[in-house]
Amino acid sequence: MTEAEETTPKDDARHAEKMAKKKAARDKIMATKTDEKGLIVVHTGKGKGKSTAAFGMIFRHIAHGMPSAVVQFIKGGMSTGERDLILARFSELCEFHTMGEGFTWETQDRARDIAAAQAAWAKAKELIASGEKSMVLLDEINIAIRYDYIDINEVVEFLKSEKPHMTHVVLTGRNAREELIEIADLVTEMELVKHPFRSGIKAQKGVEF
Amino acid sequence: MTEAEETTPKDDARHAEKMAKKKAARDKIMATKTDEKGLIVVHTGKGKGKSTAAFGMIFRHIAHGMPSAVVQFIKGGMSTGERDLILARFSELCEFHTMGEGFTWETQDRARDIAAAQAAWAKAKELIASGEKSMVLLDEINIAIRYDYIDINEVVEFLKSEKPHMTHVVLTGRNAREELIEIADLVTEMELVKHPFRSGIKAQKGVEF
Repeated sequence: MTEAEETTPKDDARHAEKMAKKKAARDKIMATKTDEKGLIVVHTGKGKGKSTAAFGMIFRHIAHGMPSAVVQFIKGGMSTGERDLILARFSELCEFHTMGEGFTWETQDRARDIAAAQAAWAKAKELIASGEKSMVLLDEINIAIRYDYIDINEVVEFLKSEKPHMTHVVLTGRNAREELIEIADLVTEMELVKHPFRSGIKAQKGVEF
Repeated sequence: MTEAEETTPKDDARHAEKMAKKKAARDKIMATKTDEKGLIVVHTGKGKGKSTAAFGMIFRHIAHGMPSAVVQFIKGGMSTGERDLILARFSELCEFHTMGEGFTWETQDRARDIAAAQAAWAKAKELIASGEKSMVLLDEINIAIRYDYIDINEVVEFLKSEKPHMTHVVLTGRNAREELIEIADLVTEMELVKHPFRSGIKAQKGVEF
């Protein structure tokens, strides 16, 4: 028997009491949460998982048969497993638009980058305003905003005034602007604690892409 | 024309030069990253997205036709969209084991929780040691470790000595132990910046589950 398995009746009783209190407190809190609305969700920070967690929500939508759409602002040049899987198996539930043409340091052409970002933003507005999608993911839009390819004030204004009440909009990318965080309902900062690149490990299939 | 679209030849030249430098620096760094190995990945922190991003990596594996497995340590009582989707469509690529019987504050039975956690850990060891899975996700194992239902030293020893070189193991849950972070290759802390529960919004289909 390991240490973790040792237990006494007294331990068990104390534990049951503690957990019962936790459950009561949690049930009380949950009972006050009754509203539903389309959320503005932001995933930012230097860590991994911003886009991955956002695609996870798209898969949740697919699992429930709810319609969604993805607009990729920057990563257009990169092939991702999720995109291939969605295109191959779930294209009837999730629309996919890849408007960026790769990371900006790959293209070195500012005019082309701006045109691509503006086209992606126009498509994003159309998808959101239609009210036909339960969730619209604007993948890496924060990068396009940070480079001023898209005007942050226009994004904030649009989300505040044009987003249908029940539509969820997810915006990802590091360096999310304060104006965006201000109007968001759910903001998570993915913080990098440790990264395998530091020890010479390359990006691997099934992990990074 | 918006401000973001205004550009001058001088701006463009400066931008191209800056991006070319970035690309050269990045290419140089990427050239040193040549190793492949199975990573120990930890998603922790109080924010959202820990499990969602981990399931995203499972979907990447599915997209590439690579075999994976999921062991759910705690959330057994909750139905998640991802699980239903994997079971319905991709069970040939991803094995699913739900060993926990709900959050600990739901059960209030320490002996039962310990037995469930130990059973999950036994299954996890079997799946990892087999070498047949490219990725094994130990969902919410950090909670079971935190409550001492599983011995952290046993987990660390096992991962160090028994994990096959090319197998990725992903461990999620808040309050990851320092001993685990120490041996991990990739650690991300999901930090909560803003949460809709605070304004009375309940958990919604396609977002939280």
